[in-house]
Amino acid sequence: MKIDIVTLFPEMFTGVFGSSILKKAQEKEAVSIRVVNFREYSASKHGSVDDYPYGGGAGMVLAPQPIFDAVEQLTGTAETKPRVLLMCPQGERLTQRKAEALAEEEHLVLICGHYEGYDERIREHLVTDEISIGDYVLTGGELAAMVVTDSVVRLLPGVLGKEESHVQDSFSTGLLEHPHYTRPADFRGMKVPDVLLSGNHAKIEEWRRKESLRRTYMRRADLLEGREWSKQEQQWLREFEEDK
Amino acid sequence: MKIDIVTLFPEMFTGVFGSSILKKAQEKEAVSIRVVNFREYSASKHGSVDDYPYGGGAGMVLAPQPIFDAVEQLTGTAETKPRVLLMCPQGERLTQRKAEALAEEEHLVLICGHYEGYDERIREHLVTDEISIGDYVLTGGELAAMVVTDSVVRLLPGVLGKEESHVQDSFSTGLLEHPHYTRPADFRGMKVPDVLLSGNHAKIEEWRRKESLRRTYMRRADLLEGREWSKQEQQWLREFEEDK
Repeated sequence: MKIDIVTLFPEMFTGVFGSSILKKAQEKEAVSIRVVNFREYSASKHGSVDDYPYGGGAGMVLAPQPIFDAVEQLTGTAETKPRVLLMCPQGERLTQRKAEALAEEEHLVLICGHYEGYDERIREHLVTDEISIGDYVLTGGELAAMVVTDSVVRLLPGVLGKEESHVQDSFSTGLLEHPHYTRPADFRGMKVPDVLLSGNHAKIEEWRRKESLRRTYMRRADLLEGREWSKQEQQWLREFEEDK
Repeated sequence: MKIDIVTLFPEMFTGVFGSSILKKAQEKEAVSIRVVNFREYSASKHGSVDDYPYGGGAGMVLAPQPIFDAVEQLTGTAETKPRVLLMCPQGERLTQRKAEALAEEEHLVLICGHYEGYDERIREHLVTDEISIGDYVLTGGELAAMVVTDSVVRLLPGVLGKEESHVQDSFSTGLLEHPHYTRPADFRGMKVPDVLLSGNHAKIEEWRRKESLRRTYMRRADLLEGREWSKQEQQWLREFEEDK
């Protein structure tokens, strides 16, 4: 996969793209990442990338020319049609399903604005997807682009080792994870539940399923909608309801 | 405000914390940020921070000792009680309102795991808030901690200049932003709407209110629930409904 990032702050990406899984994924050639400063594509003498908004008002607006030219240069030689993603709070919210769909692509271009509006022609004529990572305001699209990149790249074949990949599996059950404990069994008087020390694997499995369901019910009941329940689970749910 | 980050990958933070608004905020002393590797607090000879899960299963679990000790050392001399935030997918979802609440605190500690479970005693006895930035899987809590830090720090007094702060204002209307345009009026045949070039400020204001409402209605109807409507807005909504 190829990922191109179009930004005014390329230096923001070095720490994240040079560490951990994203570093390994590039070393293994599962992904090739380029970070491009679109100021370098400005046709103006002073490298200007923004201008006042038509119709007046506060703030500046990112002009179409530098971003169109940067994206077209990056995608001009592409054999497959790239997906061009605009990072913006008005976009479709990123979900695990969306990350999985993006991981099927061969080429992604991520455009990051920085506390300015985008000229609407960028949205309408250049971009294929507008993406938001959540309902909060960030200084710019750079962190959003790192989040999208991380969530997608870790899904590419061969990127995660056995160690790391179990996290993903635990999500695919549609429930939140059960509690985990490791040594010591008694840490400053805080103890590990007896069942986990019992060696009774059937009981441990049951405890984990129940606690996973409890956590999901207590914190994210929305994830349980439309699910079908076993008798055992129905009994647990009545219990949680009484505990509330 | 003081923000302490507790992580195994301190080097991931350099690009983001050394650029743009987060850099300026530290220079202006609106925030003081420390990034601490909790491996340095491990009491084991080899700096171990994780161990096998009680009850068996795949993956490792972050042990309580290094994280408790790191957080207690960072908060031990604090005059005010710090908020200790755990970055995890099971947490409360970050919203703008949550960021605003966190911006009122004097001291935040953010704990980042990395594709491993946390020992449950960390959640139960050390942490005050569990935070998720969205419904997708990341390699670790580091990107989530950067997102929380950025969303909070930009709200601190004196951090944003006039230029940057209008973005926030536009969110406070509860609607998505209207489209923006800047020069040229004709870019490769793609034109700016005539009304924005008209100089008629009342018309421009009306167009912006309508397009802001249209975008919100089309993309995020959930934001409109419980809102009261003027006659004009009711008419616009009927129009959008027909356009659908």
